[in-house]
Amino acid sequence: MSKLIITAAVTGSVHTPSMSPYLPVTPDEIANDAVTAAKAGAAIVHVHARDPQTGKPSAEPKLYEEIVRKISARTDAPICITTGGSKEMTVADRARSVALLKPELASLNTGSMNFAFHPLADKLKEPKHDWEVPFIRATDDWIFPNTFKTLAEFATFMTAAGTKPELEVYDAGMLSNVQFLLTTGVLKAPIHLQFVLGILGGMQANVANLVFLHESACRMIGEKNFTWSLSAAGRAQLPMMATAMGMGGNVRVGLEDNLYLAPKVLAKSSAEQVERIMTIAAALSIPVATPTEARQILGLKGADAVGWAAMPAA
Amino acid sequence: MSKLIITAAVTGSVHTPSMSPYLPVTPDEIANDAVTAAKAGAAIVHVHARDPQTGKPSAEPKLYEEIVRKISARTDAPICITTGGSKEMTVADRARSVALLKPELASLNTGSMNFAFHPLADKLKEPKHDWEVPFIRATDDWIFPNTFKTLAEFATFMTAAGTKPELEVYDAGMLSNVQFLLTTGVLKAPIHLQFVLGILGGMQANVANLVFLHESACRMIGEKNFTWSLSAAGRAQLPMMATAMGMGGNVRVGLEDNLYLAPKVLAKSSAEQVERIMTIAAALSIPVATPTEARQILGLKGADAVGWAAMPAA
Amino acid sequence: MSKLIITAAVTGSVHTPSMSPYLPVTPDEIANDAVTAAKAGAAIVHVHARDPQTGKPSAEPKLYEEIVRKISARTDAPICITTGGSKEMTVADRARSVALLKPELASLNTGSMNFAFHPLADKLKEPKHDWEVPFIRATDDWIFPNTFKTLAEFATFMTAAGTKPELEVYDAGMLSNVQFLLTTGVLKAPIHLQFVLGILGGMQANVANLVFLHESACRMIGEKNFTWSLSAAGRAQLPMMATAMGMGGNVRVGLEDNLYLAPKVLAKSSAEQVERIMTIAAALSIPVATPTEARQILGLKGADAVGWAAMPAA
Amino acid sequence: MSKLIITAAVTGSVHTPSMSPYLPVTPDEIANDAVTAAKAGAAIVHVHARDPQTGKPSAEPKLYEEIVRKISARTDAPICITTGGSKEMTVADRARSVALLKPELASLNTGSMNFAFHPLADKLKEPKHDWEVPFIRATDDWIFPNTFKTLAEFATFMTAAGTKPELEVYDAGMLSNVQFLLTTGVLKAPIHLQFVLGILGGMQANVANLVFLHESACRMIGEKNFTWSLSAAGRAQLPMMATAMGMGGNVRVGLEDNLYLAPKVLAKSSAEQVERIMTIAAALSIPVATPTEARQILGLKGADAVGWAAMPAA
Repeated sequence: MSKLIITAAVTGSVHTPSMSPYLPVTPDEIANDAVTAAKAGAAIVHVHARDPQTGKPSAEPKLYEEIVRKISARTDAPICITTGGSKEMTVADRARSVALLKPELASLNTGSMNFAFHPLADKLKEPKHDWEVPFIRATDDWIFPNTFKTLAEFATFMTAAGTKPELEVYDAGMLSNVQFLLTTGVLKAPIHLQFVLGILGGMQANVANLVFLHESACRMIGEKNFTWSLSAAGRAQLPMMATAMGMGGNVRVGLEDNLYLAPKVLAKSSAEQVERIMTIAAALSIPVATPTEARQILGLKGADAVGWAAMPAA
Repeated sequence: MSKLIITAAVTGSVHTPSMSPYLPVTPDEIANDAVTAAKAGAAIVHVHARDPQTGKPSAEPKLYEEIVRKISARTDAPICITTGGSKEMTVADRARSVALLKPELASLNTGSMNFAFHPLADKLKEPKHDWEVPFIRATDDWIFPNTFKTLAEFATFMTAAGTKPELEVYDAGMLSNVQFLLTTGVLKAPIHLQFVLGILGGMQANVANLVFLHESACRMIGEKNFTWSLSAAGRAQLPMMATAMGMGGNVRVGLEDNLYLAPKVLAKSSAEQVERIMTIAAALSIPVATPTEARQILGLKGADAVGWAAMPAA
Repeated sequence: MSKLIITAAVTGSVHTPSMSPYLPVTPDEIANDAVTAAKAGAAIVHVHARDPQTGKPSAEPKLYEEIVRKISARTDAPICITTGGSKEMTVADRARSVALLKPELASLNTGSMNFAFHPLADKLKEPKHDWEVPFIRATDDWIFPNTFKTLAEFATFMTAAGTKPELEVYDAGMLSNVQFLLTTGVLKAPIHLQFVLGILGGMQANVANLVFLHESACRMIGEKNFTWSLSAAGRAQLPMMATAMGMGGNVRVGLEDNLYLAPKVLAKSSAEQVERIMTIAAALSIPVATPTEARQILGLKGADAVGWAAMPAA
Repeated sequence: MSKLIITAAVTGSVHTPSMSPYLPVTPDEIANDAVTAAKAGAAIVHVHARDPQTGKPSAEPKLYEEIVRKISARTDAPICITTGGSKEMTVADRARSVALLKPELASLNTGSMNFAFHPLADKLKEPKHDWEVPFIRATDDWIFPNTFKTLAEFATFMTAAGTKPELEVYDAGMLSNVQFLLTTGVLKAPIHLQFVLGILGGMQANVANLVFLHESACRMIGEKNFTWSLSAAGRAQLPMMATAMGMGGNVRVGLEDNLYLAPKVLAKSSAEQVERIMTIAAALSIPVATPTEARQILGLKGADAVGWAAMPAA
């Protein structure tokens, strides 16, 4: 039985500080949440940066550099840097930190879609920051832009950087996009897919959808040509992870995807969610991958080869 | 057994004049193709406008008015006007003709996606018009924009116009978007879905995908709350229609979706494809709906109530 | 595109003479229905024998021999002999004619199941023969017996006879049985599957079920390790064939599966149903296999090598 | 969120004493395993009887009576008595104990199938009892007989006894059988389905199969007309239960289905497997039903109304 890779996605660009006091915002908080998640069992940590003052998603490379340096000083878990960004960033903004820092893994979002969470705006009763409600509400009119041209550019610069793309698949058609990139040689097998379910604008988080995506990927890409993981937004998070584990998949948890540990109980850290996965894995006798084993399974270049290892500290 | 509604989509915004000499371009050609398709058995005709000189997709309301007047003078088939438009039109452009002409049906595209056909550019050996190759090639970087805000605006103005939205679903996540519009009251059941398969950027045209979408729609929307039709791009068109007919669905054919009648044989008209459907329907003993029956099945307002019936002729 | 193999199953063991005056019963009638079906386009004919006096299903080898000799004198279509038999035959009875006649193809039913059509008994208002109503009614308590031991025995004697098994799959679990036979070496790839849908006791005839079986077979057996055909009982017959053709599968029609050509219209011969398939194939531009091409596709031993070619005529 | 009903199936008729020293065999052992499973969190216990000397499956009503009396003296969990029996029992044998003891629940197997575990025979290196190897090996030629006539008889006597049938579904076609029983009024909604996956002869235990069965049941029976649970044989047991829990289903564990707690680690009791489910349920924040809550969810008659409550103790 293949070992289970647990990824912790610790902050993301969707949730805002007023939604949970535990959402990490500063580089220190983000790094700390990542490190405790790794200690709890996560083999990979997935990071976004935020403005330390306001908590707003940021594309600032200095923040990213600070975050990854702080994480890699304390854990050997491979770091995955987002290229997803948020509504207010250009495609170039979204690429910048990965191009500079050359991490082992980076997200590569495989198509364009509505990416909406405006229904959350009315639930923010006492926002701490002025930007939060308008930021959330505006997703009503937001498209997450990832054209074929963008996909090819991202894949190309990641290849040049030795960074393995984690291919984020939010909808069934994105598997066709991935197949197109394979057919045209932009991507090379084996690839790593991250199914991201539960975003308004993409596929919802239920077992029928996951099975369909997995069967489709087997048919379109070939079972031996990909590894896969699941991310599920909101309250479906942990139950969907249990299914993915039963299917032989890998899992992603963390405060990026879900602020809760249980109904009405906020998670105090991403590590708390990782612990739940560790408990389930133990109950199911599924062995959990270490960072080193995750590197082998995914074919990562190693911690020595990241960009910041060769850069003078700021 | 429910009667089969055949829609003929006669020109679209994807194909260009150099791809087939039979692609209708002028209002007269478009109207003529629609009318012959209706005579062949289509109960509904679906139209786009093109610049009569260049064949380029156009949002010009005068062209649309000319087209629908010419069609409705010669057939009582309900007319569906696109709001899909093309790469070079704004969302407002795409709405204009429907708002003005208040047809019985209009397309309403239910989400944003890459909508690409750039691989066709290299196949155009001797383009007749300068715009064609750049237009095609640029879809590499094109997103078909239909945010939740746009969806609500389109649904609202169609409701005000008494125009029934034909909900175009290119990907699984768009069914969630439709469900959201139903839950929030923007749309009211029963709704009419058009599954559009085979666009690069959306789901591909195969039976597994169609069955998944249909099963998902039954689960999410409720079997009794929707009617549905299938459109399939390219060579899968007719075989996929046979499946849809076997499943009790309705079908769309026409030169918008496929320029061919058989491998390497260009269709001389949309009517030729309609005839193929009529042949298959007869072989399967499936009764075909007349325009009047299609109006009853879909709950359309009737030919008397379209906007141009009340407008002075230009 | 692979060529379409049409099989005509001309009489079976389910329908009784009172259900249709066109059901062939005597060796001459059965042979004639098979030959006209082949002339209409069927590449393979599938036969059962019946008592010429009563029309009751029979396991009598002399009847089978008469039937196949009469068919092969008039058409080169490969003949598939059933080993399914009926309620009143032993497993040994069911094997006898195939073992003796060594045809190119024989059915091999891949599991045990209830095989019921007792609800038809009340519809037989004026039965011609005394045996019909009790025969039908008793299927309420009938199991079609095909244990793993039987499967292995049938596969073994077919292999010895150079007869290719046509593996009849009535339910999802039977694919696991087939997989078991492959894993244990009783069967060798490539195999030929016949999905038989619509029997009470097995899976019903709808597109969702067909797609699931096909996807399951691809996953379990490997897409390149099998060819497949569809049989669908009753009124779903022709619409389901249209779907199978759209999926790239082969089809079986004939009076064994459906006595009707259209709702309330009895088919006067299996050939009439074959003609419908030919019409649909032409409309879909699907090329139809000749007997010779069917032999190549399925890897059959050829008409010269059947048992009765080497036997003195009775 | 609906509460999770855990059923413990403690001994079954498949495993034999030489496979595990922990398999309960005597009425005391069986009762004890059931009671400890209930204490660990099982809301329902499912029992078979065995010959106390040899461990061979038995249809003896006195043994069943002893078992259920011993269980109900120590726990209020509803008891489900099998009508599945084993290879050497007649259909009448299989019904006898339920007819006599009138439990709250009884299994009703919904179709006929090969039910084979002969590949296990070669793994029994040092069988304790002479009957074991022949018993196992003979399943190569065994059909589990449940004709439509049997189904109707079982449903009828259970209804008369106030015993709710737990409908065992091993294959997709059995859902059609259930639908037939509902349509003909033999069964009345709401019904309770137990999907039993992983038996050689039926569908295998994987997530795609479970999702297909669940989707099919929703389509065929109506989502609100049934409750369901999952049983999965062998090593897939616990991972499949995690999926069922994520889908909102109920679960069955116990030594009947799986002798192991982890790869190569025998479970010392059914309770150990129940504890694993309790752990996973806690990790997923899924509330677990008490016996009283299970009675409400399934509509059971109550412990006071079982047959043995009104019978003089033997």
